[in-house]
Amino acid sequence: MNRNIGVKEHISQKVLSIESINQRVRNMEYAVRGPIPAKAEELKLKLLDPEGSNLPFKKTVFCNIGNPQELGQKPVTFLRQVSALSELPELLTKENRNLISNIFNSDVIERAEKIQKMAGGSVGAYSDDAGIFGIRKSVAEFIQKRDGFPSDPSKIQLTNGSTGSIERTLELIISNENVGIMIPIPQYPLYSASITRLGAKSVYYYLEESKGWGVDTSRLLENLKEARNRGIDVRAIVIINPGNPTGSILTLENMKDIISICEKEKLVILADEVYQTNVYMVDDFPFHSFKKVISEMKSNVELFSFHSISKGMFGECGKRGGYMEMYNIDQNVMDQLTKMATVSLCPNVPGQIALETMVNPPREGDESYQQFKAEIDEIHNSLKRRCIKLQKAFNEQVNITCNPAQGAMYLFPQIKLPQRFITETINKNKVPDVEYCIEMLETTGVCVVPGSGFEQEIGTYHFRCTFLPQEDEFDEFIKTFSEFNTKFMERWN
Amino acid sequence: MNRNIGVKEHISQKVLSIESINQRVRNMEYAVRGPIPAKAEELKLKLLDPEGSNLPFKKTVFCNIGNPQELGQKPVTFLRQVSALSELPELLTKENRNLISNIFNSDVIERAEKIQKMAGGSVGAYSDDAGIFGIRKSVAEFIQKRDGFPSDPSKIQLTNGSTGSIERTLELIISNENVGIMIPIPQYPLYSASITRLGAKSVYYYLEESKGWGVDTSRLLENLKEARNRGIDVRAIVIINPGNPTGSILTLENMKDIISICEKEKLVILADEVYQTNVYMVDDFPFHSFKKVISEMKSNVELFSFHSISKGMFGECGKRGGYMEMYNIDQNVMDQLTKMATVSLCPNVPGQIALETMVNPPREGDESYQQFKAEIDEIHNSLKRRCIKLQKAFNEQVNITCNPAQGAMYLFPQIKLPQRFITETINKNKVPDVEYCIEMLETTGVCVVPGSGFEQEIGTYHFRCTFLPQEDEFDEFIKTFSEFNTKFMERWN
Repeated sequence: MNRNIGVKEHISQKVLSIESINQRVRNMEYAVRGPIPAKAEELKLKLLDPEGSNLPFKKTVFCNIGNPQELGQKPVTFLRQVSALSELPELLTKENRNLISNIFNSDVIERAEKIQKMAGGSVGAYSDDAGIFGIRKSVAEFIQKRDGFPSDPSKIQLTNGSTGSIERTLELIISNENVGIMIPIPQYPLYSASITRLGAKSVYYYLEESKGWGVDTSRLLENLKEARNRGIDVRAIVIINPGNPTGSILTLENMKDIISICEKEKLVILADEVYQTNVYMVDDFPFHSFKKVISEMKSNVELFSFHSISKGMFGECGKRGGYMEMYNIDQNVMDQLTKMATVSLCPNVPGQIALETMVNPPREGDESYQQFKAEIDEIHNSLKRRCIKLQKAFNEQVNITCNPAQGAMYLFPQIKLPQRFITETINKNKVPDVEYCIEMLETTGVCVVPGSGFEQEIGTYHFRCTFLPQEDEFDEFIKTFSEFNTKFMERWN
Repeated sequence: MNRNIGVKEHISQKVLSIESINQRVRNMEYAVRGPIPAKAEELKLKLLDPEGSNLPFKKTVFCNIGNPQELGQKPVTFLRQVSALSELPELLTKENRNLISNIFNSDVIERAEKIQKMAGGSVGAYSDDAGIFGIRKSVAEFIQKRDGFPSDPSKIQLTNGSTGSIERTLELIISNENVGIMIPIPQYPLYSASITRLGAKSVYYYLEESKGWGVDTSRLLENLKEARNRGIDVRAIVIINPGNPTGSILTLENMKDIISICEKEKLVILADEVYQTNVYMVDDFPFHSFKKVISEMKSNVELFSFHSISKGMFGECGKRGGYMEMYNIDQNVMDQLTKMATVSLCPNVPGQIALETMVNPPREGDESYQQFKAEIDEIHNSLKRRCIKLQKAFNEQVNITCNPAQGAMYLFPQIKLPQRFITETINKNKVPDVEYCIEMLETTGVCVVPGSGFEQEIGTYHFRCTFLPQEDEFDEFIKTFSEFNTKFMERWN
C-alpha cells in the first residue's frame, strides 16, 4: 500500500468532511468576499514583493465592499472620543477631570458618564440581552424624530451589526423548508445565503433597471402568485432601501403600492434601511422609512426594520453595532426574539455605545457640535461628489450605462458585453461578468463584484462598485478603469 | 360580536404567531436568564420605590450569571487603556504624544500603534472575516506557550464571544435531525438550547457528583451506545472544563480516557475551556487543555476548543471577544466555517482588541507590567478566597453539601430538600428546586439558578451560585442565605 493512499484513507475517516457536514451551509454562496477579493488580497501582498513590480498597477483598490474606513475615511471624532472615554472609568472621577479636559470636550465627558450609568456601572458587564435599555430609548427617540410617529424602546433590539438582526429574524420566520422569502433581484447576498442556510426558498422579485431600479408591483404580484401556485408558503419580503447593490431609492408611491400588496397578500416586510442617510439627491429622491409610511397608511403590516452604524457617515463597520425595530409584531413573537438574544448573550457593548452616539449626536450649543457637524457634512458632501462623478464617468465608457446615483455607497452599472466574449466564455463554462471583473482586477488592481453575485436579470451583466476611494485618488481610479474597459471592448468587438 | 373576540381574531390574523414561527426556536429553554432573574430585576426596581421598604432585604444580588463587572469587579487597566487609545488614532500622531504620555504608558501606546497597523490602518473597518490576522497570530503564540505544541493562526477563528464560535460549530456539525451531540449533565444551557434550535438531539452523559463531578467513562460509553442503538448519529461531545455549572476540573487521566473513547468511537470534541485561568487549587487540580493532551497522545481526534475574554481575570463580558482553535479538522470543513464568518461579516473589532491584550499581556520590564500583574493577582486571589469561603459556608448549612471548589466562577451545591416539600410542590405541578430558589430570592434578594435549569440527575436538587459578590459584601451575603435556608428547612422538616 503506498503512502498517499494511506493519507487519503486517513482523511476520509474524519467525522467531519465536506460530505457529512450541514449541506445547507455548504450550499451557501456569497460573492462580496468570494474568490475575486481573495485574488485581490493575493495581488496586494505581491505588490510588497520585488516581483510585484511586474504588475501593471501600483495599488489594489477594494471597491467590492462598503468598508469606508478601509479606504481612508476618517472616523467621526465625537463617536470615537465617547467610545474611548467609556473604556476609562477611572478618568471620569473628579480628581482626574483636569487630566482629560484638554483631550475630551465637556459633552463627551457627560455622555461617557451617562453611558456608564445606563450600563449599570460598567461597560464591561453583559448588558440586557436586547441591548442597554437607555440606548434603546435613544434609538426610539431617534426614530420618533425621524418619522414623526411614536417608537417603543421595548420593541427595539440591538444586535451585532444589522446582520445579527437579519439572521435572527429570518431564522424566526423560517419554520420549515417550504417557507419562501421574497428577495429583490439584484439583492445583497446575505439574504440568499441565509435563506439557503436556513433551508427555505428564495422567491425573486425584480428591480427594473429601466425604471431607476424601482419595483414593478404587478410583476411582483405575478412572481408571488407563481410561487404560491407551486405550493411555497411565501411569508415575507426583503426590501433594501436605499438599494444595495443598486444605490437607488424607492419613491413614496412605489412604497405605498408595496405595502398595500403586503397587507392584502399577508407578507411581513423586512426593511433593510442601513443606507438611510446615504442620500445624495434629497430633493428628487428623499428617503422614507417603511415604519413611517406604514404608520401614515394606518396599515397593520408586520414590519422589521434594520439600521446600522456601519454605513451612513459614520462607517464604523468594525464595531458591529445595529438595531431592529419591530412594528405590528405579535408580543409572543417578540418574546421569542428576546429569548434568542438571551441564549446568545448580549450584543457587543462598544457597538451599542457607538450606536448611542449616532442616534443621539451633539446638538447645537454642545461643545462638540461644530466639529461634529463639519465632519459629517464633509463626509456626506464628498460621498455625493464621488457618487455623481463616478456615475458620470461610467456613462462615458464604451458599452456601459449606469442609472443616476441616488443613495447608498454603490453604483451598479450595466456592461453590454460583446457577444463573441459572452459566447466564448460560456463555452469555457465560465461566467461572463466574473471573467470581466477578474480581468479588470488583474489589469487595474481595482476589485469590484460581478453582478452575478447579486443575481441579475438573465442576459444582463453588471458589476457593483463602491465610490469609496478617497477623492485625491479618484481621477486616477477612473482613468485606469476607463483604459481597461476601452481596450477590453476593442479587443472583443 | 364583542370587542375581545374582535381583538383575538385580529391577533390570529398576523402572519407571525407563536404557532406559525420556527417551533425549534419556541422549544428552546434557557434558565440562566429565565423567569427568576426577571423577577429579580422587578425586585431591584421595587427597591427604588417607596413600597420597596416593605421588602425583607435592601439589595438584590445577581449570582445567576458569571458577569463579574456587574458585581463591582474592576476592569484590568492595560486592556482598557489599549482599547481606548485604539479608538483615537489622532492622539497617536507625534505632535499629540505629550498630550497622552501622562495618561497612557509607553507599552500601551506601542500596542495601540501595533493594533492600528494590524487592522490595516483603522479599527473602524471590517476586519478579516475570521478576525485580524495579527491577533490570530498572537492567539496562536499564546496557545503554543500554554501547551508546548505548535498552533497555526490560520486554524484560529475569532468570534463575538465564544458563544459565536460554539453556535457556528454546532450548526456546521448538525446536518440533519438525527444527529446527536453528547452534552454533560449538568451542563451550561447554551448547548441544549442551540441543539434544540438546530433541530438535533442532545445525548446526555453524566458528571458524577460523588467523584468530584468527574466523568465515569464506562457510563458515558453506555449512554453513547444506547443512543446509537436508538439510531441516533452521535457525532460530537461537548466538554466544559473547568466545569460550568460544577466548577470542577477534569483530571489528566479522565481526559485521556475521554480522548481514547472519542478516537475509538469517532466523536468530535467541543472543548469549552473559557474558565481555563479560573483555577484556584492549581497543585491539586491543574488545568490541561484538550489540545495539549490530544497532542501528547498523538491522537487524530477532531477538536474545536473555545476561549473568551468574558471570564478569567478580565471578565470583559460586554466586549464579546472570543476565539476557537480547530485541530485535526479537514481543510474543506474549515473553509466552510470561514464562509460562514464571511456571510455574517467580521466579529466586532473592540472584542478582538481586548483578546489581543489578554493573549499578549505586558511582560516583565514593560511599563505596565507591575500594575497589570498586581491587578490580575488581586482578582485571582480574591476569587480564590471567595470560592473557598462560599464552599465552606455551603457545607455548614442544614441539608446542603458542596463539592470542593476547583475552578470557574460557580458552586453547584446539592440541596437535600425535605420530602414533604418535594411532594407538595410536585403536586402543585411545580419544580422543587425552582420553588426553593424563588423563595430564596424573595426572602434574601439573592438570585441563583435552580439545578433543573442545567439538568441534573433525577431525584437530586441543586442550585448554581456564582461567588462574584465583592468581598466586603460576602459575609452579609452568606449570613442572609444561611438564615433563609435554616428557616426553610425548619419549616418543612
